[in-house]
Amino acid sequence: MTESWLDIPTESDFSLINIPFGIITYAGASAPRVAVAIGDKALDLAIFSASKGFLGLPAIQPYLHVFHEPTLNAFAALGRPVHRQVREYLQKVFTKNGPYRQLLEDNKELRNTSLTDLTAVQTYLPMHIGDYTDFYVGKHHAYNVGVLFRGPANALQPNYTHLPVGYHGRASSVVVSGTPVRRPWGQILNADKAPIYSPSKRLDIELELGAFVCKGNRLGAPVSLTKAEDYLFGYVLLNDWSARDVQAWEYVPLGPFNAKNFASTISAWVVLADALEPFRAEGIPNESETQSYLKSDVKKAMFDIDLEVSLQPNGAPSGTVISRSNGCNLLWSFPQMLTHHTVGGCPMNVGDLLGSGTISGPDSGTEGSLLELTNGGCKPFDIAGVKRTFLEDGDEVVLRGWCKDSTGQRLGFGECRGQILEAWENGVAPE
Amino acid sequence: MTESWLDIPTESDFSLINIPFGIITYAGASAPRVAVAIGDKALDLAIFSASKGFLGLPAIQPYLHVFHEPTLNAFAALGRPVHRQVREYLQKVFTKNGPYRQLLEDNKELRNTSLTDLTAVQTYLPMHIGDYTDFYVGKHHAYNVGVLFRGPANALQPNYTHLPVGYHGRASSVVVSGTPVRRPWGQILNADKAPIYSPSKRLDIELELGAFVCKGNRLGAPVSLTKAEDYLFGYVLLNDWSARDVQAWEYVPLGPFNAKNFASTISAWVVLADALEPFRAEGIPNESETQSYLKSDVKKAMFDIDLEVSLQPNGAPSGTVISRSNGCNLLWSFPQMLTHHTVGGCPMNVGDLLGSGTISGPDSGTEGSLLELTNGGCKPFDIAGVKRTFLEDGDEVVLRGWCKDSTGQRLGFGECRGQILEAWENGVAPE
Repeated sequence: MTESWLDIPTESDFSLINIPFGIITYAGASAPRVAVAIGDKALDLAIFSASKGFLGLPAIQPYLHVFHEPTLNAFAALGRPVHRQVREYLQKVFTKNGPYRQLLEDNKELRNTSLTDLTAVQTYLPMHIGDYTDFYVGKHHAYNVGVLFRGPANALQPNYTHLPVGYHGRASSVVVSGTPVRRPWGQILNADKAPIYSPSKRLDIELELGAFVCKGNRLGAPVSLTKAEDYLFGYVLLNDWSARDVQAWEYVPLGPFNAKNFASTISAWVVLADALEPFRAEGIPNESETQSYLKSDVKKAMFDIDLEVSLQPNGAPSGTVISRSNGCNLLWSFPQMLTHHTVGGCPMNVGDLLGSGTISGPDSGTEGSLLELTNGGCKPFDIAGVKRTFLEDGDEVVLRGWCKDSTGQRLGFGECRGQILEAWENGVAPE
Repeated sequence: MTESWLDIPTESDFSLINIPFGIITYAGASAPRVAVAIGDKALDLAIFSASKGFLGLPAIQPYLHVFHEPTLNAFAALGRPVHRQVREYLQKVFTKNGPYRQLLEDNKELRNTSLTDLTAVQTYLPMHIGDYTDFYVGKHHAYNVGVLFRGPANALQPNYTHLPVGYHGRASSVVVSGTPVRRPWGQILNADKAPIYSPSKRLDIELELGAFVCKGNRLGAPVSLTKAEDYLFGYVLLNDWSARDVQAWEYVPLGPFNAKNFASTISAWVVLADALEPFRAEGIPNESETQSYLKSDVKKAMFDIDLEVSLQPNGAPSGTVISRSNGCNLLWSFPQMLTHHTVGGCPMNVGDLLGSGTISGPDSGTEGSLLELTNGGCKPFDIAGVKRTFLEDGDEVVLRGWCKDSTGQRLGFGECRGQILEAWENGVAPE
């Protein structure tokens, strides 16, 4: 295990094996800029690069401007080989008595100006998202929901095991961890099955992984599965908040719309695809014959990421874990999702976000949504001395995800947090 | 009827009552810039504004930079009152012996440098589109398609008359008129009802209107119906190309995805919302009680726009009109669509595109898609000596739309054109 000269707490998501990228501001640095998280610090790469921090990496010299951008798009667009070089270089910079010790470890002034406590930084949406697509490849989730609506015999739709089912989401409503979520108004059916205009009463979460795209393809030019990894920049946690009552009424025949477009929260730090390589794992086996364009020799196409959902009910002193799942619980990999997305020629752009869909496990206690956890809202659960089915005003949800290597170092995603605010009175927001 | 000093052909879509905005380049002007179309000319507003063309409109002086932008977003963001002023000002500039005759009519040099034949300009996507949403509010279309799939008794879904049904589309695949459309590969069911990987065999069109958004709302802050008009910049024709066989297999339960995201074509010139004001008309009456947030006192919420679909089969010398419809054939207005879109707090941004959904009329010959025109592909029609059900390679489709005022002046949209290219061999695009 390589040691850092920085004091990295054992339980930190941001150990030396991680080096995730994000966008920050802090006191005295009001223009959003690129940073990496390390232990309980953020390294400001705008300052670091301007102070010759990348002196040991000649290849990045022509591109140092990317670290002064307010999103990661320009950095992402440099491509996977550059991300790899920059991450490995920064790992060396943070390594105790490493080859670049003079740059930061032995440079007290730059340490002081470029490193800031994570608790003192404000994070932002890490990328400008052109298009956001949400898939539905968490098979246990699809099955659980199918059972609720159609019974076990017809739980999965006929297409489910043949293609990564997905839909276009709303890019403008993707927000960064910490952004409060206003309970949405919408049309729902009341007890008499007549539609009414009302705040949602069945506000739910969805535990997902998101992947950011770092390469574009032309309109009309599909991305083959063998090349799809080159298009994947990195990963975040994604909470696809869902108004189940709005969804039930609106979704036939064109899919979810207002039920999902009021907010989708992502974690602030993008874990690079390369950082997850050591944690590859097999996903859910697919019993159906796979079409040629989706066929892969890669056995381990998912990631062994422990996932959990914590809920802090309004008034409770702290959160309680209500579900634990794992990133392996997917039927299709992100490369397969991307390839399927482009099979007809749909163009991807740098900054596009792909969601996995809800990642539930096969067992009780591993559900990625309250809909499943409460059997469609029929079985409330006890938490912190109160009952819950769906979310109440003031409830706060935190998603967490992490991998651990053999030496016990954590590679984590940080928090994906959001608190529910009460619906506006009469559906009208103050000016 | 006001006359122009420009020779505007009677059949021109771009008469003095129109003044639509677009983005152009032409020989000697290689940076995309803002223009208006007038008769068979384009007025380059970058050159016009730099040459003091807006001298008579002091209010626009601080914002002249918007005409040098490669999209209309910055101009749109100035708001409806500014669009109105600029359009009315340009109408006066083009008026014979008008108040600003010295600016262009009497200024031969500026006429020569700023006016270019439309045939000599290249047009571009007029706006940078953040999010694209496609609605489904053409009631006759929804009914026709429902009859094909479920029979007349259950043709419309229970929610249909209660809310503007819509789904999130793919912004990255919206292209400008003239862009060729590659036949998409995808998963479809073969005759044995087994999925295969194949080029689409049921490639279709959808005749739609699109509206561009010119004002944003905050996350969590719905836009009331009384204010929704302020958010609508202008209108275009929209052909939402659809692979019906891909759609039929993939769309349950999350809606259309690859069936629609390979291309959606819009006309190049944005007809300002103000220009359409004189053509307001009533839409399709709604027999259901309207929810309070969608209720409107505006009787004439649609536009009386004649619409037609022309198809030029591969090898035919010219196109043949295969369908005629009208912009009135909608159940919900664009302001209602926008208000419904934001009812839960979804943020709109300048440049977002809203599609109406297919606009079919109630009668034979008014269908907005080949699916309807051929009764689900069962009844081929004769055109230019050949038979057609769905589109063949080389077929070219042109949508047109126009209004006519009492003096016979046309306000039209120009063409929304696209030709089908053959599918890539084996689904692989050349590098």
